[in-house]
Amino acid sequence: MMSSSFPVVRLKPKANARAIRHGFPWVYENEIVIDRRTRNIEAGALAILEDGERRPMGVVAVNPNSKIFCRMLDRNPEAVIDQAWLVEKFARALALREQIYDAPFYRLIHAETDGLPGVVVDRFGDTAVIQPNAYWADTLLDEMVAALVEVTGVSCVLKNGSGRARTLEGLDEDSAVLVGTAPEGPVPVVMNGATYMADLTGGQKTGLFYDQRPNHEFAAKLCKDAKVLDVFSHVGGFALASLAGGAKTALAVDGSAAALELAEAGAKASGFGDRFDTRKGDAFDVLTALAEEGETFDVVICDPPAFAPSKPALEKGLRAYERIARLAAPLVSEGGYLVLCSCSHAADLARFRGASVRGIGRAGRQAQLIHTGFAGPDHPLMPQLAESGYLKALFFRL
Amino acid sequence: MMSSSFPVVRLKPKANARAIRHGFPWVYENEIVIDRRTRNIEAGALAILEDGERRPMGVVAVNPNSKIFCRMLDRNPEAVIDQAWLVEKFARALALREQIYDAPFYRLIHAETDGLPGVVVDRFGDTAVIQPNAYWADTLLDEMVAALVEVTGVSCVLKNGSGRARTLEGLDEDSAVLVGTAPEGPVPVVMNGATYMADLTGGQKTGLFYDQRPNHEFAAKLCKDAKVLDVFSHVGGFALASLAGGAKTALAVDGSAAALELAEAGAKASGFGDRFDTRKGDAFDVLTALAEEGETFDVVICDPPAFAPSKPALEKGLRAYERIARLAAPLVSEGGYLVLCSCSHAADLARFRGASVRGIGRAGRQAQLIHTGFAGPDHPLMPQLAESGYLKALFFRL
Repeated sequence: MMSSSFPVVRLKPKANARAIRHGFPWVYENEIVIDRRTRNIEAGALAILEDGERRPMGVVAVNPNSKIFCRMLDRNPEAVIDQAWLVEKFARALALREQIYDAPFYRLIHAETDGLPGVVVDRFGDTAVIQPNAYWADTLLDEMVAALVEVTGVSCVLKNGSGRARTLEGLDEDSAVLVGTAPEGPVPVVMNGATYMADLTGGQKTGLFYDQRPNHEFAAKLCKDAKVLDVFSHVGGFALASLAGGAKTALAVDGSAAALELAEAGAKASGFGDRFDTRKGDAFDVLTALAEEGETFDVVICDPPAFAPSKPALEKGLRAYERIARLAAPLVSEGGYLVLCSCSHAADLARFRGASVRGIGRAGRQAQLIHTGFAGPDHPLMPQLAESGYLKALFFRL
Repeated sequence: MMSSSFPVVRLKPKANARAIRHGFPWVYENEIVIDRRTRNIEAGALAILEDGERRPMGVVAVNPNSKIFCRMLDRNPEAVIDQAWLVEKFARALALREQIYDAPFYRLIHAETDGLPGVVVDRFGDTAVIQPNAYWADTLLDEMVAALVEVTGVSCVLKNGSGRARTLEGLDEDSAVLVGTAPEGPVPVVMNGATYMADLTGGQKTGLFYDQRPNHEFAAKLCKDAKVLDVFSHVGGFALASLAGGAKTALAVDGSAAALELAEAGAKASGFGDRFDTRKGDAFDVLTALAEEGETFDVVICDPPAFAPSKPALEKGLRAYERIARLAAPLVSEGGYLVLCSCSHAADLARFRGASVRGIGRAGRQAQLIHTGFAGPDHPLMPQLAESGYLKALFFRL
């Protein structure tokens, strides 16, 4: 794949070439001069991006079926996108993670930010799960997996081909074992002193998210001797961390029985089984029921799914965040803590904080904001791409 | 001081009573009905705040000489502001710090957020330094110090009466030993595995700021085996933490010889003396000189004083932050880290990030943003008071 043979994609004169030069990694369809040749570029093909004056800007991956027409791969128009190029990206990403984490459990590739647009790789020891959520990555998957194995030495690579991002790219759902043998049963993952159980083949509802790790860690500091409620607990995220931090008891609430079973297994593996309990149900219903039962907790954590995944859903999403805060605040004992999280792109920090504070106020409580946390450093941000920041965790004292 | 004897201060009908009801803690002069009686209220006196319909809103502290005419003390208009009331505030603040920190070294009172408007108390083991930066606090200082001693058991209380906040309130510069005997020489403070030397009587240039503690901690994780440059190092803030995190060497730059002497003493007390070096000089000059010398570092940290302390200074301040980033980025080795901090109220996170990214870009470097940190949890925020958030630390990988 020498760049000299690549097709050319040209920016319209009015397109924001400056933003792209300053690091913005995407070119939208309406910024491109569309002629028959560009129309005929196959999804996943590589091309040379030129500005309006025909100056080459770099090597891009093209997908004529996506709103993101081009994704910048390399700002050097001579770059050769081969296994060696991929090895260099993986090695650079690995160096950051090895600097920060003692054990090989982390997000290894966080898409654009780690130089591999649309690609997500999570590492669980000797197993890596790759999500090639852009067409070019699906096309180059063999080389990518070979580079991943070369750099990390993992013995098993799983492809997770589910999720909305693939649909937007025109890719099929397709999950498979690419290298080695899939682990039998859930994989134990140690974080913040607790053992989590990650079912890597069971799909999104039972996998594991690394992004909340620093927020789990901060919450754990607030939980010594505390009675903790973890709503939207998934596989026990905050609950198990709080028990590792010395919580007296933790109650995990989730709508998924499969997730709660893994949380239970994690609590047992961590030696916290006797201090851990679960309650399956809709979070809003359970919060309401607990209030009716007159229950209070020293620490209440709510880490819901994205209520505002897109801009049209923003207002509705903010109302849902406010409602969570309003229902959760009355369950917090005086001087206790309320931790509210959002993983919505569209709800930025100020809006999410506003909705949370309104909800707390409507519950008749006053709050100090003692900490604001984001996703961990294995989820770096591209400063030019606001979309790449999504996770917010607000730690209130009531 | 029974509230029934208090003068009354009334909001104009157009004043934003709603914001105050929702937790905003200040009333500005232009929101108040000013008549002869309110004019005659003495600075530091307590009063009952009423809304436009004469409904009592709470007990406030009044200062007719300040733009902040009233500061809310208690939303209960019947509240008695006495030593017991002060004890309750200190006890609540202490409970948060004891939850989070193993040793009694922290900011104990962070003004409005901890229920004591304008009051700052930093604790250094058995010594507390109080800044009564609002008139009411200066007036009630005896009761406040008695409450502080009752709750914490500290044997020494120092008053630090320097700084711009006192001038705005019409208070004199006035520092004194209020309880016990001032410590002889600098006080050793252990944070993140390093020992810092805090000169509590030598003034702002040699004291110690606790707010950067979590950012020191995060930086230390990036510094294993690294060659580190700490610009605006003060008493060695990031430099000593980086050495505790395993840095090979750390060079601390500051304009104050007194601060660098304390940094040197801290390095020796920590056992890092042989890996630590200092360079006195203007930060911009030293950054330029290091570039001319062809020096590079694995980690460069710049923690300047507030370049944009107020809104009129914002544009100039942002240019200074951009300049710092532009001068510092070339000193960072490939794959290394650049940590940029701002303690300016006026430069919010997005603006400061923008200025930093522009500066990095102008230096011809690309960056990942791996972490955004704020002040530690002993500096809580009042969600209703955006001004109470000021410290930002951006961790870039270049």
